[in-house]
Amino acid sequence: MNNTNIQSLIQSLEWRYATKVFNPAKIISADIWAALEKALVLTPTSYGLQPYQFILVQDPAKRAALLPHSWGQKQVVECSHYIVFTARTEMTPADVAKLISHTVQVRGIPAGSLDFYRDMMLGDIVNGPRGKAAHEWAARQCYIALGNLMTCAAVLSVDACPMEGINPAEYDNLLGLNGSGYKTVVALALGYRAEGDKYARLKKVRYSHAELVRTV
Amino acid sequence: MNNTNIQSLIQSLEWRYATKVFNPAKIISADIWAALEKALVLTPTSYGLQPYQFILVQDPAKRAALLPHSWGQKQVVECSHYIVFTARTEMTPADVAKLISHTVQVRGIPAGSLDFYRDMMLGDIVNGPRGKAAHEWAARQCYIALGNLMTCAAVLSVDACPMEGINPAEYDNLLGLNGSGYKTVVALALGYRAEGDKYARLKKVRYSHAELVRTV
Repeated sequence: MNNTNIQSLIQSLEWRYATKVFNPAKIISADIWAALEKALVLTPTSYGLQPYQFILVQDPAKRAALLPHSWGQKQVVECSHYIVFTARTEMTPADVAKLISHTVQVRGIPAGSLDFYRDMMLGDIVNGPRGKAAHEWAARQCYIALGNLMTCAAVLSVDACPMEGINPAEYDNLLGLNGSGYKTVVALALGYRAEGDKYARLKKVRYSHAELVRTV
Repeated sequence: MNNTNIQSLIQSLEWRYATKVFNPAKIISADIWAALEKALVLTPTSYGLQPYQFILVQDPAKRAALLPHSWGQKQVVECSHYIVFTARTEMTPADVAKLISHTVQVRGIPAGSLDFYRDMMLGDIVNGPRGKAAHEWAARQCYIALGNLMTCAAVLSVDACPMEGINPAEYDNLLGLNGSGYKTVVALALGYRAEGDKYARLKKVRYSHAELVRTV
């Protein structure tokens, strides 16, 4: 690790901002998008359960339909790629069985060797005390993905705007999610800033390290 | 943006894993830690409200006290830097006033110019429908920070292990958080993997792009 890498990372994080105006003509190239999608898939999650699905909304008609349920924020229709993060509505034994079976296949190990791991998941996020709040737990995993993707975008000089100001229930209707086992949590618009976006020039507002990081 | 950057980012994300055994003798250098702390402070949050505080636990006695409330996971005591993410228990008009006042100072703008922004925050996350779930909203912002920090650590070749398996109430007691307006949400151990950590060699288990990313 050298200083150039460190400085380059911090410069990327200083460069990024919640982009208000995208340049609709500037599209993320296929190779960069493939990397961002790969980064999304590589997101770490609790137990590795990946309790989410990402919906890439590229159909202009669907984007237009989402706009009024997004406080009219134009990023929805003007960005290059629009990702809706959806989380499992509940966690079932089938979710756990699916992960176990996939792990057995990927790692080429005997299924029985994961019994302890399986029972731990079942006793926690399915049938345990956290089972009742499993959607919220899954939503938090979406936010790991959101944080990861925003940082990766910045590193690859791609602009982004996180969208909490959306109506999840209306998104669910328009994206046909009702009954799918997934619910809308948050969204992220990705692309490139328009030259005229005045927000790009505003100073970043952060509390001091002393206020945010306390050492004990 | 060139292919080297893209490949280097993906390699970092492939390289990382939830480190089970840290090398306690290998400490994150001051310049790398400064960058990671800076990255943490630069985390994007909803409205920019930064409704969290990060507690860096370096006192060995405190780490030892947290261990039994962390399912006995040794990462707590063996890692180089241990960060506990805490989120605001509720959002008050004072939280909004603090952000407005800081923004006015950093950007050198008249306070009145932010009235609309202030009222939007008050009408949403303080007094609005989401006000009742403000702690959960703040916890989600912690997860953006967690996702951001895990990715930045990987980019800087620093190992990490996210810790959801902790007892937040016991952490609150031990860290003196009761009555502070903040509650423990999640933690992250950072440092360098021990050579013998067998988990480093396991294949990563992720569902396919087709399962996780749906295009509409």
